[in-house]
Amino acid sequence: MTVQTWLWLTLFAMSLGAAAILFTAKRRTPEEETDGILHGIVPLIAAASYLAMACGQGAIRLPLGADPAAQWDFYFARYIDWTFTTPILLYALATDAMHSGMRRHGAVFGMLAADVLMIAAALFFGASATAWIKWTWYAVSCGAFLGVYYVIWVPLLEESRREREDVRAAFRRNAAFLSVVWLIYPLVLIVGTDGLKLVSPVLTTALIAVLDVVAKVVFGLMAVGERARIVDRDLHETRPVRRSAPSLAPAE
Amino acid sequence: MTVQTWLWLTLFAMSLGAAAILFTAKRRTPEEETDGILHGIVPLIAAASYLAMACGQGAIRLPLGADPAAQWDFYFARYIDWTFTTPILLYALATDAMHSGMRRHGAVFGMLAADVLMIAAALFFGASATAWIKWTWYAVSCGAFLGVYYVIWVPLLEESRREREDVRAAFRRNAAFLSVVWLIYPLVLIVGTDGLKLVSPVLTTALIAVLDVVAKVVFGLMAVGERARIVDRDLHETRPVRRSAPSLAPAE
Amino acid sequence: MTVQTWLWLTLFAMSLGAAAILFTAKRRTPEEETDGILHGIVPLIAAASYLAMACGQGAIRLPLGADPAAQWDFYFARYIDWTFTTPILLYALATDAMHSGMRRHGAVFGMLAADVLMIAAALFFGASATAWIKWTWYAVSCGAFLGVYYVIWVPLLEESRREREDVRAAFRRNAAFLSVVWLIYPLVLIVGTDGLKLVSPVLTTALIAVLDVVAKVVFGLMAVGERARIVDRDLHETRPVRRSAPSLAPAE
Repeated sequence: MTVQTWLWLTLFAMSLGAAAILFTAKRRTPEEETDGILHGIVPLIAAASYLAMACGQGAIRLPLGADPAAQWDFYFARYIDWTFTTPILLYALATDAMHSGMRRHGAVFGMLAADVLMIAAALFFGASATAWIKWTWYAVSCGAFLGVYYVIWVPLLEESRREREDVRAAFRRNAAFLSVVWLIYPLVLIVGTDGLKLVSPVLTTALIAVLDVVAKVVFGLMAVGERARIVDRDLHETRPVRRSAPSLAPAE
Repeated sequence: MTVQTWLWLTLFAMSLGAAAILFTAKRRTPEEETDGILHGIVPLIAAASYLAMACGQGAIRLPLGADPAAQWDFYFARYIDWTFTTPILLYALATDAMHSGMRRHGAVFGMLAADVLMIAAALFFGASATAWIKWTWYAVSCGAFLGVYYVIWVPLLEESRREREDVRAAFRRNAAFLSVVWLIYPLVLIVGTDGLKLVSPVLTTALIAVLDVVAKVVFGLMAVGERARIVDRDLHETRPVRRSAPSLAPAE
Repeated sequence: MTVQTWLWLTLFAMSLGAAAILFTAKRRTPEEETDGILHGIVPLIAAASYLAMACGQGAIRLPLGADPAAQWDFYFARYIDWTFTTPILLYALATDAMHSGMRRHGAVFGMLAADVLMIAAALFFGASATAWIKWTWYAVSCGAFLGVYYVIWVPLLEESRREREDVRAAFRRNAAFLSVVWLIYPLVLIVGTDGLKLVSPVLTTALIAVLDVVAKVVFGLMAVGERARIVDRDLHETRPVRRSAPSLAPAE
């Protein structure tokens, strides 16, 4: 298959995934409605980005070394997609951790800012030709990624411990899934066309396409399904969802 | 009149409109203050965009077909203006629907995301030369527009029904005005310079200028006026604004 | 020292400053956590911008007058940095003024919108070659700056008067520091490379570097320190922080 075929197929998968999430997500509480809409919008944004790439508008031709005839296509549209979709996914994960009400706004804001910095640095990594500059940006992006991991696994995990045990378990599953899937991206970027180019453009496109569908559609369906089970129990029990008192006490 | 004359005139109208809204809007409650500021900022952003276009900085020259001498000016600044102003207008409309307190955050976020997607797709429509790509983006933009309409006329209308009858009526008037005026934009884009070019650059500029002034200044003055009458009654009656209990019950 | 040396040194100072703020800021209440994270992220974003400029990626070469050989480097990355960092600093200042709980959302939004307009107009000022266009943008930017000042010194000052006297005093100190430091920027822009070029690129870079470190790192450390003293007293006294009743009364 060619790069174009992969891009069109992924556009199709993203559109289908968005429809599946938006039409199956229940809206019994305001929080459940928000969760479905956040997860539904993510593949819609990705679909727009894949459409731009499939039409040849999401890439620019960059020089490859000293030979002016040698060039490669830098698909920058991915990074624009990720600038918007990854913060939405992380925000949705924060609402999974704090089902009984958003708190720790500073930590959540810090996670989203680190995430946007991670994507911006990755864009500069992809666009840079000089090796030391390219890998400096890669290191900056990884540093920001560690910041994202920190917020997920320290403050968010901590907040999830104040919730009912099923909420806690769902958060841990979603956080683990996202943490593992997102870890594969920087590995693919190293070997792919934006990095060392050890792997062909077609294989790079295919690998990122599969990752994108898993990180957005599969993860979205899973998260919305978890949420539905939690809201089932909320509505059935009618007693307060929160295990402990509201966090007016010091946060740490 | 030339394109430049229209651009300068509209810059003048937008600045005057912003001043009119910012200086006449009352600030008796926090919500009234917010409403006036949101509607006042919209023409200020538009004025900055019209200034850029009038100075020749908001357009790029693009090739027109195979003849390298044939070119046209693509005024991309409009789309940057709309990326910021349309979400502000829709957010203000959501506060009209939910006068007694913002709720349905997911639906409102979905409306703003669909709106930004609509504008981004319209930008790609305008910038694309190949017919099938151009009209595919047009279709994507219209699809996103339907999403915006859906949120206005289903969840927001639903929430407005929980409010006092004068709030409900004002929301319906504002929603209808916005829905009709915004519908003319995609029609102008079809025939204008960014679309089929059936209409001259001067006429395209004039049509969009009039639409922009109506959608931003006239709509803003109308919405701020409606709000003032509602707050008059709020302050006079002093009894709770909300008709029914807060929406802790399922949203649908 | 060369421009590059200044850029690398400032990158180093910003990174160190971010680390100092993030690691020393206490997190005893959600608000204290937010304050530390907001002030810590600001120099991180600046560090990324300085890295881009030091690597030669944050500038473009623009023509200087009629002679095609004469060119100058326009460091546009600063303006992108400021687009994100200045709203964060202003938002943090608003939380200083309203320690007992955010209110006046409209005024705060208006301040952030005016601020982004101020930076965008300054970017156009820097990038414009024609004198009347350049100085028109400068005037627009100054007008937006007056809007920012207005919100700081009228509605925010007003809200700070509803707070305990130590909160009030801390807000006034922070607001005065920020107002004075930010006022030097437009003066440097007039004489620097983006303006009249009366001052060399090295001196322009050095002046802005010092200003940036003062406005971000020094200001951040000061604001986080003030906050720590206020939270000390909050936790010690345990009585309500707010002096008067919540602002359900008219805002003006």
